[in-house]
Amino acid sequence: MASLVERMQVVAIAGTGLIGGSFGLALRAAGFQGEILGISSPSSIEKAIHHGAIDRGATLAEAAGRADLLYLAQPVGRILAVIRELPRILGERALVTDVGSTKQIIVDAARKYLPPGSFIGGHPMAGKESRGVDNAGKDLFRGRTYVLTPLRPEDIEDARVQDLLEWIRRIGAREVIMGSEEHDYRVAYGSHLPQLASTALAATLSQTETLTGPGARSTTRLALSAFDIWRDILATNAEPITEALTAYIQELEHIRENLRTRAIEEEFERGAAFARGLE
Amino acid sequence: MASLVERMQVVAIAGTGLIGGSFGLALRAAGFQGEILGISSPSSIEKAIHHGAIDRGATLAEAAGRADLLYLAQPVGRILAVIRELPRILGERALVTDVGSTKQIIVDAARKYLPPGSFIGGHPMAGKESRGVDNAGKDLFRGRTYVLTPLRPEDIEDARVQDLLEWIRRIGAREVIMGSEEHDYRVAYGSHLPQLASTALAATLSQTETLTGPGARSTTRLALSAFDIWRDILATNAEPITEALTAYIQELEHIRENLRTRAIEEEFERGAAFARGLE
Repeated sequence: MASLVERMQVVAIAGTGLIGGSFGLALRAAGFQGEILGISSPSSIEKAIHHGAIDRGATLAEAAGRADLLYLAQPVGRILAVIRELPRILGERALVTDVGSTKQIIVDAARKYLPPGSFIGGHPMAGKESRGVDNAGKDLFRGRTYVLTPLRPEDIEDARVQDLLEWIRRIGAREVIMGSEEHDYRVAYGSHLPQLASTALAATLSQTETLTGPGARSTTRLALSAFDIWRDILATNAEPITEALTAYIQELEHIRENLRTRAIEEEFERGAAFARGLE
Repeated sequence: MASLVERMQVVAIAGTGLIGGSFGLALRAAGFQGEILGISSPSSIEKAIHHGAIDRGATLAEAAGRADLLYLAQPVGRILAVIRELPRILGERALVTDVGSTKQIIVDAARKYLPPGSFIGGHPMAGKESRGVDNAGKDLFRGRTYVLTPLRPEDIEDARVQDLLEWIRRIGAREVIMGSEEHDYRVAYGSHLPQLASTALAATLSQTETLTGPGARSTTRLALSAFDIWRDILATNAEPITEALTAYIQELEHIRENLRTRAIEEEFERGAAFARGLE
């Protein structure tokens, strides 16, 4: 496997924030010896170099021409814009992947604009409510699920994708391969719904005088997440999210109607069993 | 103030779990020199002694007869049952307080069964989803709000209540005095709603295949809370909780209808501002 991995010599990370910066730090910590380029604003590049997440800055054109792996770690809307720019500048040997939280719209754009076999969608199930390379860390992906959504099943067999898979394992993540539609449905429940539940809770509590304990803090922490990332996610996965919100509202209505009945115990047991599974 | 506080020589804690055990540990750490009795099952008493939270076990009758402070740290239903037992056994100098998450029903029971001036409702806004004296700690109350709900305004001036207040400050909590009705309304939003939001979220996610990240974990952790404590809370504060759930459901519906509009940004900003305030 080592010989395979050595083929990846130049990695370019577009968007050197929390996820992109952590990817650079994790690659280095896992033994990556090649060059790591960063594509971002001058101030972000400076910070990312300072933290050791990248070696130097580059333009998208230079990076796309030279990179073995082009890693798009930006908000969904920016990822879509970059994919549309790539046909003119992408080098022949480059594999492009991204970290966007919605995959179908990105995979569709890649299918339309990029050469077959040059793109695989990605979504590391890592992150936190704080952002920027200052919050990045080499262990952000450790123990986390890393979803890959190939455009065609055979893309997984591609040597460059196998290289990427090997590095995903080396940085401590567990890869899961699935279709983009299935991914989007599952994250609507498992990731987008928790965000909106937390935001809605905090917004509700902000409208009245409350007495809060530690529980309010832990359940509303996610509401600190940056909106400019979520704007794109909500707009590009609206249908599955609507379904997830409806299921959640129905559950809350069921609880509201059963505050004094035994039926509520079942919901607590179900919820506790699920939460224990995530521990 | 020291002379006041020294009047409190015997503290009896009924229910030596997370809150009761932590109160004993916190008193000791804050310099309490008197005796700490525990009222609980033999196995809980043994564990509480082992952790240093109490000195020895006692029957409710002995404890109520001897204690300067009788601290009821049980589920709401048990607190109500104990209050009904106290008229036959409570010593003349004892001040009774409790830690129940709903106050109006408890204050009403105290008004009915106990001598005027012998009871003040309490609610430390501390706790966690894990329970038992094994999870107790001397710092559980540090930096937390500690609500006191007097039956009559003048009860606050009582020397025994002033002693209790001094110890509440010494264990690092901040007292807040308010009426039981206002308390129950405010905790319905600030404490009971976050619990139900988390339980409902976990119960919803348990019903489908999901891809979860760190956000799902932080927002569903509260769903691990023990139901036997929450059964009593939900049953005794059902009206304010119903109102809070309705406000939350309306907020979620508003978000669901605005996933692709600018209105969603305002909810994120409002939510983030609230969450920042709890940091």
